[in-house]
Amino acid sequence: MDSNIMQWRRVGTAMVVTGPSGAGKSTVCKPVLTSEPDLHFAVSCTTRTPRPGEQNGVEYFFLSQDEFKTRIQANAFFEYAEVHGHFYGTPRNEVEPFLAEGRDVLLDIDVQGARQFRQRIAGTAAGQAAVFVFIAPPSLAILEQRLRSRQTESEASLQRRLADARDEMTAWREYDYLVVNDQAETATEQLHAILIASRCRICQWE
Amino acid sequence: MDSNIMQWRRVGTAMVVTGPSGAGKSTVCKPVLTSEPDLHFAVSCTTRTPRPGEQNGVEYFFLSQDEFKTRIQANAFFEYAEVHGHFYGTPRNEVEPFLAEGRDVLLDIDVQGARQFRQRIAGTAAGQAAVFVFIAPPSLAILEQRLRSRQTESEASLQRRLADARDEMTAWREYDYLVVNDQAETATEQLHAILIASRCRICQWE
Repeated sequence: MDSNIMQWRRVGTAMVVTGPSGAGKSTVCKPVLTSEPDLHFAVSCTTRTPRPGEQNGVEYFFLSQDEFKTRIQANAFFEYAEVHGHFYGTPRNEVEPFLAEGRDVLLDIDVQGARQFRQRIAGTAAGQAAVFVFIAPPSLAILEQRLRSRQTESEASLQRRLADARDEMTAWREYDYLVVNDQAETATEQLHAILIASRCRICQWE
Repeated sequence: MDSNIMQWRRVGTAMVVTGPSGAGKSTVCKPVLTSEPDLHFAVSCTTRTPRPGEQNGVEYFFLSQDEFKTRIQANAFFEYAEVHGHFYGTPRNEVEPFLAEGRDVLLDIDVQGARQFRQRIAGTAAGQAAVFVFIAPPSLAILEQRLRSRQTESEASLQRRLADARDEMTAWREYDYLVVNDQAETATEQLHAILIASRCRICQWE
């Protein structure tokens, strides 16, 4: 070991935040991004239409189906998945260049996408340094309440989300960390702590 | 999985903080203990004489050599080691009853002791939930400056500590986390984050 620890190089962490729709992933991620200006938020691509207030390049890159498929062919995505009839994907250039320069990257992706992401980076240095966080609602009953109070979708769509959530929640043991989003403030503090702690992991140093 | 996550039981975390003498283990641990009133500090036993201000049962239990050896025979220690001519040991009853009721325990122990502690709990539920944190000075030169500024010991004793520190620092890859104690405030924040994050690890839930 070099006796001057301060000269060691730290590998960038990819922090993958996932969980069922309605668990509050983006609510929990936003304050962490605000308090960590150096943390890069990997903007995903999607074929769904923007919700009011969403801006292209901020929450998502909004693409047509054709454009999305062209990018799949060009191997531009780290992972992509079809969820509730829309495509979602993580562009490589939102992840790889940042990790390469030792910056941390936050990814807010669906459960299928997270699973693919893990497979893609398994065995690489970035894979060893990645952390997978599952954001869960306190219970499915509470998730249902939350989805209903949004009043943004039909009963059929809501039932589909709940059925998916039930499936997705059985997969929680695949992850490194579980954050139960009961109180958003506590959940945010936990996610932030996971990021800070991940930077101290021995495997991050080389 | 039970759909009501709030009913799951969390296993207590043993957070073992170690590192060379003079790295600032207790300086970094104290504020974490203050901000986490439920975190139990496992008070070690030692045969060294108390320093000014140290109280029996607070920093250490101060024992005679005979009493220490009696307790070794009675299997009262989780681990013990002889360091710089004095015995140090972690009493089982400062650790096991707390973990059993799901409380987290902070151990501030020397490098030899930490190694023994890990061997003892390997393969148990407590072992899976334990985290090992190495507190390092930014460099050996800075460690030397710090030890000299304390002015509490002879040159020979100081040289022995430095030689030990050099050895101990080669062992850092044995640990889960590395906290470089450059600024105490940052190091404390990191140790606290490691505790909060450790509570969210999937392996803590059953």
